[in-house]
Amino acid sequence: MGVQDAIAEISTFLGQRLTRSKSDLEIHGRSESHFPQSPPDAVAYPETTNEVARLVRICAAHGCPVIGWGTGTSLEGQAQAFDGGIVVDFVRMNRILEIRPEDMDVTLQPGVTREALNQELRATGLFFPVDPGANASLGGMASTRASGTTAVRYGTMRDNVLGLEVVTASGEVIRTGSRARKSSSGYDLTALFVGAEGTLGLITELTLRLQGQPEAISSAVCGFNSVGDAVAAVIETIQMGLPMARIELMDSASVAAVNAYAGMDLPEQPHLLLEFHGSETNVAEQAETFGMIAAEHDGTGFDWATRPEDRTALWTMRHNAYHAILAARPGARALVTDLCVPISRLAEAIEATQADLAQSGIEGPILGHVGDGNFHAILLFDETDHEAAAAASALSERMVLRALDLGGTATGEHGIGRGKLGYMAREHGGGWAMMGALKQALDPGNIMNPGKLVPPREPS
Amino acid sequence: MGVQDAIAEISTFLGQRLTRSKSDLEIHGRSESHFPQSPPDAVAYPETTNEVARLVRICAAHGCPVIGWGTGTSLEGQAQAFDGGIVVDFVRMNRILEIRPEDMDVTLQPGVTREALNQELRATGLFFPVDPGANASLGGMASTRASGTTAVRYGTMRDNVLGLEVVTASGEVIRTGSRARKSSSGYDLTALFVGAEGTLGLITELTLRLQGQPEAISSAVCGFNSVGDAVAAVIETIQMGLPMARIELMDSASVAAVNAYAGMDLPEQPHLLLEFHGSETNVAEQAETFGMIAAEHDGTGFDWATRPEDRTALWTMRHNAYHAILAARPGARALVTDLCVPISRLAEAIEATQADLAQSGIEGPILGHVGDGNFHAILLFDETDHEAAAAASALSERMVLRALDLGGTATGEHGIGRGKLGYMAREHGGGWAMMGALKQALDPGNIMNPGKLVPPREPS
Repeated sequence: MGVQDAIAEISTFLGQRLTRSKSDLEIHGRSESHFPQSPPDAVAYPETTNEVARLVRICAAHGCPVIGWGTGTSLEGQAQAFDGGIVVDFVRMNRILEIRPEDMDVTLQPGVTREALNQELRATGLFFPVDPGANASLGGMASTRASGTTAVRYGTMRDNVLGLEVVTASGEVIRTGSRARKSSSGYDLTALFVGAEGTLGLITELTLRLQGQPEAISSAVCGFNSVGDAVAAVIETIQMGLPMARIELMDSASVAAVNAYAGMDLPEQPHLLLEFHGSETNVAEQAETFGMIAAEHDGTGFDWATRPEDRTALWTMRHNAYHAILAARPGARALVTDLCVPISRLAEAIEATQADLAQSGIEGPILGHVGDGNFHAILLFDETDHEAAAAASALSERMVLRALDLGGTATGEHGIGRGKLGYMAREHGGGWAMMGALKQALDPGNIMNPGKLVPPREPS
Repeated sequence: MGVQDAIAEISTFLGQRLTRSKSDLEIHGRSESHFPQSPPDAVAYPETTNEVARLVRICAAHGCPVIGWGTGTSLEGQAQAFDGGIVVDFVRMNRILEIRPEDMDVTLQPGVTREALNQELRATGLFFPVDPGANASLGGMASTRASGTTAVRYGTMRDNVLGLEVVTASGEVIRTGSRARKSSSGYDLTALFVGAEGTLGLITELTLRLQGQPEAISSAVCGFNSVGDAVAAVIETIQMGLPMARIELMDSASVAAVNAYAGMDLPEQPHLLLEFHGSETNVAEQAETFGMIAAEHDGTGFDWATRPEDRTALWTMRHNAYHAILAARPGARALVTDLCVPISRLAEAIEATQADLAQSGIEGPILGHVGDGNFHAILLFDETDHEAAAAASALSERMVLRALDLGGTATGEHGIGRGKLGYMAREHGGGWAMMGALKQALDPGNIMNPGKLVPPREPS
């Protein structure tokens, strides 16, 4: 069989770094998605681009699926080998190749995690802003077009990848983009691979934009009587052009969960969590302006802190919110929704979600990157209760359809994988077929992460 | 013959709006490029997306080339019908369909020009920032991935197009993107069409991001003893993270030309032209910081103005610089180069260009969007002097190769068209073949703007 032949050939040059050990297959068969275990046939640990290219050439010859793996934190099954094949784990390709402070960019291998990068950058006065919460690999973040809490100011991976090295489906190595800040030179291949979830090729090197560490940072929390009031404050803040670095919503249920998990004592009401970046005067000016907006919407307890330890506590709490919400209901599983709508429709989208949650009796704390119009409801249900799981799925689907009706998208930052495949035709119409044509052109053998993102195709 | 049959069929529903008048063919046969006249077989003036789709379906059936036309201001022959066919002029598709101040976005037809849009936006407190100088159409600007003086702050068309309606090469109408500020939903088709120069389809509608008009704007000029000093000041400004709205370089020759053309009296030395956007205090802070940086590099005459009429005079002068340079040498033609390099290599790239200009005896005033590392040398030669034209071409080629060696791109904002086709293999390697594969997949009949951007292909 093709997959076994491919594994045998790849073993000849990867040796021990191609493994079929039970534990390795198991670890790489699950993810943070709600999909069941589906172990690959083997896991490869390449150390160089050449090894990746050689591996892909062999897989192409044998029709063996190739699935990229960063840290396994994707939420829609992107890294799972549903059809078997070889998972390529980039953990050993984790070198930062060159930091260029004068150009504010960095070239690195895909296995570098965002925390490792920022640790390394600390001495340079620069940082990489995209922050999805999880300590994901940068190759994975690029492949998912990830974003997170700071996208409202610094953009998503779409905006922060300058160029890539990619191993194509035929095992060729190409480079996209350049280190120039802009270019009108041909099709934007970088943008094509960012968000492609490994279905068109494997990213083996990235050049990323960096940002200067702001002179001053302050963070703040502010409580509101209702999600509607909080969102109204957000909309006004964005429309005024305040350059917020972070502006995050947590509803009462999320606040209750983090209070319990992190020993905080926030009032159990909807909160905005904020961060301001700029010069000293600038940050003070921003905080003051926000304070005025919040007051107009009956915001309470607005207070801003500049001490690093207070900031760290705040954002650690926010990053742990997902785990806090799960911990509040032992034995529960979560279906994490990921809508993004035009900011003017955000209150409507959240309120409709809350009404739907109330009516269906499903527990679903809401939090999100509201400055972008992006929010998540963490739909909780008992692992063994199939009816509850189905009800959560149905609610998730209603949420997506409402977001699309409001001019939004089914996924602001988690991607498609297999989990959101069912919404692609609805969201993109003929564009989804076009994505299939692009996939067919660049991966005619359908070996790169098959079964994800594009319309299903018979194996060739 | 196919083209004639296509014309006959299209006439049945476009009537007088499909024209073969000599003047129309002539106007649409030239552009601001250095290419000779090449009139199309006919010019179409559609008024609706459906008309465009119907036209393209007929052209697909007859193998007739289809070339989009905005205002004809592209510089690399993008809109010229080198192989004949039908030019689709979008001048009658110039309606602004919906401005949504609360979401800071707008949906419009491709024939709307950027000045018409900003005129219409004036009352809303919003503006569209991308400013390539020419009053280009927004469909054309998207297709060229245009940028200009404000990209250093607000990004290029890549960053400011949220979604598109596109007529594909088979005459199907698809939509890309959404009005959500971000999305991880599938391949980034919007980014694929932005910069595709009409080779994959025709843009029939755009949704663009808008910006809030800044509370305060001030502009400034500052002279320097050398281009090296000016560029050193730019590099330091960018590296400090000053959020410059514009930072433009004009060398001594450019300054001399605009002095003569616009009746200015700037000292004949290299200058930076600047604009600051923000709150009152913020703008003052930025200008002060820049003043300090300039002083360290022996900048002289630094002065900033907040009066709108002073600003307008300054930027009108800058926008007219190209015409001023041409006017300074009657009868001359220009080959406009468009390099973009990492900012740390900018001084090196400009100095090498100056040395090359001096050595080859070619006149070539330099100006550019130096905050992005992008600059133009306007290589002048007499229209009738073929040897001089060849020398200018050779110089341009040396400039491009140096830019690529420095990690840059052959074109920061003017695009490929036919003019830069010869550099694609060098700049993109295997990526250029990949672009050809994408083109083949989406336009198998090679009817959309053939002979541009991708590797040449035999007509199918």
